[in-house]
Amino acid sequence: MSRDAGEFDLIARIRARVGERADVVLGIGDDAAVLTVPADRQLVVAMDTLNAGVHFPAETAPADLGWKALAVNLSDLAAMGALPAWCTLSLSLPKGDAAFVDGFLDGFLSLAVAYDVALVGGDTTRGPLSVCVTVHGFVEPGRALRRAGAQVGDDVWTSGTLGDAAAALVRWRAGVAVEPALRGRLDRPAPRVALGRGLVGLAHAAVDVSDGLVADLGHVCVASGVGAQIDVDALPASDALLAGFDGDLRRELQATGGDDYELCFTASVSVRDAVEDAARDAGVSVKRIGRIVAGEGVAASTEGGIAWTAHVGGYRHFRGDDAGR
Amino acid sequence: MSRDAGEFDLIARIRARVGERADVVLGIGDDAAVLTVPADRQLVVAMDTLNAGVHFPAETAPADLGWKALAVNLSDLAAMGALPAWCTLSLSLPKGDAAFVDGFLDGFLSLAVAYDVALVGGDTTRGPLSVCVTVHGFVEPGRALRRAGAQVGDDVWTSGTLGDAAAALVRWRAGVAVEPALRGRLDRPAPRVALGRGLVGLAHAAVDVSDGLVADLGHVCVASGVGAQIDVDALPASDALLAGFDGDLRRELQATGGDDYELCFTASVSVRDAVEDAARDAGVSVKRIGRIVAGEGVAASTEGGIAWTAHVGGYRHFRGDDAGR
Repeated sequence: MSRDAGEFDLIARIRARVGERADVVLGIGDDAAVLTVPADRQLVVAMDTLNAGVHFPAETAPADLGWKALAVNLSDLAAMGALPAWCTLSLSLPKGDAAFVDGFLDGFLSLAVAYDVALVGGDTTRGPLSVCVTVHGFVEPGRALRRAGAQVGDDVWTSGTLGDAAAALVRWRAGVAVEPALRGRLDRPAPRVALGRGLVGLAHAAVDVSDGLVADLGHVCVASGVGAQIDVDALPASDALLAGFDGDLRRELQATGGDDYELCFTASVSVRDAVEDAARDAGVSVKRIGRIVAGEGVAASTEGGIAWTAHVGGYRHFRGDDAGR
Repeated sequence: MSRDAGEFDLIARIRARVGERADVVLGIGDDAAVLTVPADRQLVVAMDTLNAGVHFPAETAPADLGWKALAVNLSDLAAMGALPAWCTLSLSLPKGDAAFVDGFLDGFLSLAVAYDVALVGGDTTRGPLSVCVTVHGFVEPGRALRRAGAQVGDDVWTSGTLGDAAAALVRWRAGVAVEPALRGRLDRPAPRVALGRGLVGLAHAAVDVSDGLVADLGHVCVASGVGAQIDVDALPASDALLAGFDGDLRRELQATGGDDYELCFTASVSVRDAVEDAARDAGVSVKRIGRIVAGEGVAASTEGGIAWTAHVGGYRHFRGDDAGR
């Protein structure tokens, strides 16, 4: 792993703080890491990049950035039902800033420790502020939760609450104070790893809500060859969202806001109790928000006649008679 | 894997061109990839980022950038003696530029096909031009080539020729025409994968030459607790380097120039013939360039009394009586 020399050795700084796992044969400090995958597991790999000014405000606290860079990747593993194991980190910094790296690691490693994820390699390079993380996890052979698998008649569920992270962005863009509870959802999303594990064998399909519920459920529908009907009035909202946002804006944030990193999943009506049990075991709330139907696309509607529909790769927003349902 | 929507779907563009492998259970298009690791192999993982203006000139042809981004990662696997299998790619682009992506994939995938590497995931995001790649390979348990393992008395070897990529950078920085043979070494390095595989069980230690011979061999010495003596006059040079560069500058390029992505390795004197055979089988030249000694650091000297010495993380350059040997 090549690198830029700096006033101090960033890699040594990182290496000194990294945890251990018995399945890490060789971690940071060689040309590559050497790892042992259990013989009875498949390997699950996700990779996500966060660029300053695009995926996070440039003034984000380093510790929050470190947390989020790992969290969004762990969320991808959660959506597959995988158990996290290792990660690699590529950190591009405009200059060798020891305080920034230390703060970044505070957030990154606190989450890594919480999920027993070992940082096993990567690089630190000079460049515009950017973080690329690859995570590795395990899943029982053939049991990974996929986007393709939703069946007509399935319930559609979501974990937690929706719209909080997008609401924080609304405040931030308006230049006003952000409620701490909303800011926390944007800066320090909680990957739903335990829930994902609990849904293995129960859910037919799953996705994490990164682009927004309608868009992400739209990916599930395309992959599964089905459609979905969502009751926007039933979408779970946090107290902070309810207190700070009302009406159409709140519903729009819930239906289309990204960055919440909840799990949206589908499961047979017959396993409702088991899903509730799995969520309770994982310490996460879940709520039924709609149904998988024959056809295509996502129709998300309210009693007030407002609707959003998904197409491939995003969403469109319609109002009233133009709803196009 | 979250992403930015564009005028066209970059991920679909990539997905349509990706090859297949039987051990890829689920590739691009879900939240993560699902992969099968052979039960009798360890997993080897490397990750390297290339940032515009830092690791490559911003005007680098997209196809060359695609090639190099994968090549530098495959080179890390080569230095471990690992057989490549899969990669993930995170491509940050200032705008959704279809022609750029197509060109990038031309280079990236031509190398991927040559080494039977499947692109299984990643993301495309908006941001300053940057490429982050993670590669995965396999190695027999306990057989990976490490930096720690060099033994006093070992021969030090290098593959190929040294200094070509750095020579190309000298030309480029001077604003003059770059000899095509040198430019090719900078833009399209050849990862020494077959040689690395052939050295498993033969070499005691290995590293790829990315930061420069003296610096990279210095990493081996630190990891192994030994020193090294290098005969700079014995370093292999290409015809293009010999034709275009002379004297001290050429020797400096060979001893300290990075980006050649040759393998530098150490092996017992008793296996010289076997090393030559392995190199012949791999279609790569190898040359003995020095010796592992007791002590620490790399002393690279010439008959003319010029010397370079390595310390941790880089190298210092001394001349004549100040050589500090």
